[in-house]
Amino acid sequence: MQGKPSPHAGSATRARLLETARLRFAREGYDATSVRDVARDAGVDATLIFRYFGSKKQLFDEATATAPGGPDLLAGPPEELVARMAREVVFHDWSTYGGEHPLLAMLRSSAHDDTRQRIREEVCATYVRALEDLAEGADAGLRAELLSAWLVGIGILRSVVGTPALAAAEAADLAPYVETVASGLLGRPMSGEVSTQNGESSGT
Amino acid sequence: MQGKPSPHAGSATRARLLETARLRFAREGYDATSVRDVARDAGVDATLIFRYFGSKKQLFDEATATAPGGPDLLAGPPEELVARMAREVVFHDWSTYGGEHPLLAMLRSSAHDDTRQRIREEVCATYVRALEDLAEGADAGLRAELLSAWLVGIGILRSVVGTPALAAAEAADLAPYVETVASGLLGRPMSGEVSTQNGESSGT
Repeated sequence: MQGKPSPHAGSATRARLLETARLRFAREGYDATSVRDVARDAGVDATLIFRYFGSKKQLFDEATATAPGGPDLLAGPPEELVARMAREVVFHDWSTYGGEHPLLAMLRSSAHDDTRQRIREEVCATYVRALEDLAEGADAGLRAELLSAWLVGIGILRSVVGTPALAAAEAADLAPYVETVASGLLGRPMSGEVSTQNGESSGT
Repeated sequence: MQGKPSPHAGSATRARLLETARLRFAREGYDATSVRDVARDAGVDATLIFRYFGSKKQLFDEATATAPGGPDLLAGPPEELVARMAREVVFHDWSTYGGEHPLLAMLRSSAHDDTRQRIREEVCATYVRALEDLAEGADAGLRAELLSAWLVGIGILRSVVGTPALAAAEAADLAPYVETVASGLLGRPMSGEVSTQNGESSGT
């Protein structure tokens, strides 16, 4: 494996570096994570990181870019949107992030203004905007943020703080409350569960 | 001010150290904060920190111990409990914490198991327990945690992430939604506002 690596080997190393970086940033935050640590975790030389990513900042951006959300969130019945978000934000398998919600990686680094701005953009562009489109009446933006805040808070209390009832809860336990809070904040009937019709998976 | 400090001077220095430590920990997290930084911020020698607090861990515990909550939260009408919590968690003046919610100081350091356990104990002993006592019916603990999660999420989106509608909101803007969500989750009528009777202050 010495000498010039093949493009294929390079892409595997790149993927491994992103994985070890994601875990380190999630656990330690941006400042406390060194490029050398990430390289050692991946079993490669630190110079490779600069070759592949250019800088620690770039590595951070790429490693935390695979946050949940995105187009999948918008597929499916609108009245199940909050239930889909809850499943994705709260019950996702975060093992690649050390078991913690990936938002934490960014919050641990949020003393940096550009990280803070990126969190804001990501939260607003995915969750808030999708919920705002569903909210009826005045204050649609505020109500969409209040509902996003709830999902973020549940994710943090469950995966980071580990409060007992949430840590033990499964998606079905939360369903009636997702229905109550989502319907109340959006001003329209919302479902607490994701339907399994249309061949969609119902796994949590 | 050389030589043996008077007990009074010592207590002023101690308070100043707690203040600079609180700000540093809130902004940088536990690992990235050095005792030397805190001492320099306070304009004293680092040895003073060990004399007053024994260790960096002890300094962290004391600096973040003045989190909101406590007995005041339980004073006043029970139906206004969530409104009081919202005022304290969301609209408190966090300038001594660098403008951010103090929970963030702890979350930035939550890779440490003992910090994580302390957050869990504090959140459970204040917010969750008080809300659980009010919740009617089954799942009281889960519903209390879900409501606590909402307040934590709002605090984080407002003070750290800075999503636009929440950043601009005042307590009165949130009142109708506090009423909706708190009543829905606790299963009993809750007020979104804190009454100003009994000579209480209504300032946010």
